[in-house]
Amino acid sequence: MKALQLTEIHKGPHYRELPMPERRADHALIKLKASALNRRDVWIRRGQYPGITYPIVLGSDGCGVVCETDASHAHWIDKRVIIYPGYGWGNDERVQSDEYRILGLPDQGTFAEYISVPISHIHHAPAHLTDAEAAACPLAALTAWRALKERGRMQPGDKVLVTGIGGGVAQFVAQFVHALNGQLAITSSSTEKLSGLDSTLAAVCYVDDDWRGQLQAACPGGFDIIVDGAGGAGFGELVRVLAPGGRLVFYGGTRGRWPAILPQHLFYKQAEILGSTMGSPRDFGTMLNCINATQLKPTIGQSFRLEDGADAFDYLESGQQFGKVILINSDD
Amino acid sequence: MKALQLTEIHKGPHYRELPMPERRADHALIKLKASALNRRDVWIRRGQYPGITYPIVLGSDGCGVVCETDASHAHWIDKRVIIYPGYGWGNDERVQSDEYRILGLPDQGTFAEYISVPISHIHHAPAHLTDAEAAACPLAALTAWRALKERGRMQPGDKVLVTGIGGGVAQFVAQFVHALNGQLAITSSSTEKLSGLDSTLAAVCYVDDDWRGQLQAACPGGFDIIVDGAGGAGFGELVRVLAPGGRLVFYGGTRGRWPAILPQHLFYKQAEILGSTMGSPRDFGTMLNCINATQLKPTIGQSFRLEDGADAFDYLESGQQFGKVILINSDD
Repeated sequence: MKALQLTEIHKGPHYRELPMPERRADHALIKLKASALNRRDVWIRRGQYPGITYPIVLGSDGCGVVCETDASHAHWIDKRVIIYPGYGWGNDERVQSDEYRILGLPDQGTFAEYISVPISHIHHAPAHLTDAEAAACPLAALTAWRALKERGRMQPGDKVLVTGIGGGVAQFVAQFVHALNGQLAITSSSTEKLSGLDSTLAAVCYVDDDWRGQLQAACPGGFDIIVDGAGGAGFGELVRVLAPGGRLVFYGGTRGRWPAILPQHLFYKQAEILGSTMGSPRDFGTMLNCINATQLKPTIGQSFRLEDGADAFDYLESGQQFGKVILINSDD
Repeated sequence: MKALQLTEIHKGPHYRELPMPERRADHALIKLKASALNRRDVWIRRGQYPGITYPIVLGSDGCGVVCETDASHAHWIDKRVIIYPGYGWGNDERVQSDEYRILGLPDQGTFAEYISVPISHIHHAPAHLTDAEAAACPLAALTAWRALKERGRMQPGDKVLVTGIGGGVAQFVAQFVHALNGQLAITSSSTEKLSGLDSTLAAVCYVDDDWRGQLQAACPGGFDIIVDGAGGAGFGELVRVLAPGGRLVFYGGTRGRWPAILPQHLFYKQAEILGSTMGSPRDFGTMLNCINATQLKPTIGQSFRLEDGADAFDYLESGQQFGKVILINSDD
């Protein structure tokens, strides 16, 4: 089969002929139709990720059709599926086990023509989505869903602030806020990205000096939930615009350390700062239920052919994207 | 009646003859037997508290006997009671309302011979406790209980770290950990205070350079729950000794700002940093159930006569205390 193989830091990945994956018992062999990039893939190419081994076929997100499995799972044959993008969550809904790993390192990922995954990890692709749209969902939508719904405990009517709206996870958080009838505010450094999304409360450019003031004016009582993947100095401003009883959920820290925070700004209002990453298999199921029930469609940024995968990596690294970056497999 | 009246900053309070409190409908007039100081009282004397008005009778904690009420509440007459130490929590268990205020400012507090409080705020004093012990409980035990149980969601077997063990709230947290069959570690700046309490996991002096290392050695998997009232630079070390899925509950910040924290140390382990203050009327009920069921006895530090109240304030301010500082009313 053809696949994108990463063989060294900063280069490729290269489109190559590789052996077909071996299908184990209780696994499904899937002929992939489309896959999607995540920032994780770019970090791995840069060498900035724990446990990198070469050569490796990356990719955590994929949509395809089951072409081979055990007789007892034959009802899956020819079904269009997406894949739960992790292994080894464990039994604790609160936190993944030490063995947890994301699809695409060290296990073969989705930037390939075929992949073999456990039957328990496959789910029907939402019928209202194209292959590309379905492939756009797994990792980013799961991370967004857990942060907003399981950790942030979002309810209809909640006022939710989503930072860095250009990012893939942030996009899904914003869409889930709409789907769950919340009130949305967004921030970005780019006024262009801010105009790309409907927000009911505010769309604030965080390079403005008074961005905290703009948020306070738009939502005087504070936000019930804030979802942030950036950290950095701006995190200190987010703390100040939380409502009493509010939850500040963070799933990343691309801008580094939080500033020095005064506990008095938080404990009297019983605020919560909640770390979140990925999501459990159960979270994946409830997320898919929401996508199906609300007919949510992910935003697709740019699509590339699988053989042009290296260009897709370069594009995501350039930071221009708005919406998911997709790889499309050829039809034959 | 006699009471301790605060009339100006930094002075007193003065033991004075004051009018009897007026009892309103659905209130109980209580003849107080004992009361207890909290750090809040010292802050108010220093002028470091929002909304201070003079003259004021302070005191959030008290134990006494109901001497007068409406006919419909007559079954409370002669009963020994303690008082829920707040007003106006509201209907949201998650956070108190804007109207919430603590007993003893602006409403008359417990450093007096008599107090009138709503019937709904009184509870039977635990039968196994003396008047002084019962008076020691309300505010500090409530704060400790909510932080540990409602916010930290402590379960039997949990590994719990309590910082600054000399404080009144910290003492109760430690006792509740024992009562709920948890495993306890404690920190203090004073080796003397560390030796005053049984701890099953570790007793670490946080002025030692390697105090984080000592905690990690005692609890290699990290703590399920940490309860902190100090903040300051040490808070950054606490973040590092949290277990995956761990909860760091904070109810104060006497040492000021947290240091700059790296989000990467927290989000992958799905850690939670949870603000907490006081507790709801429901929390007060579940706390009393625990004290009664486990026959928990608070640690009494030093007792003073009500008329020597100013000395009790000076003593608490000196930081020598280990356990609650009590005021005893004369028997006549």
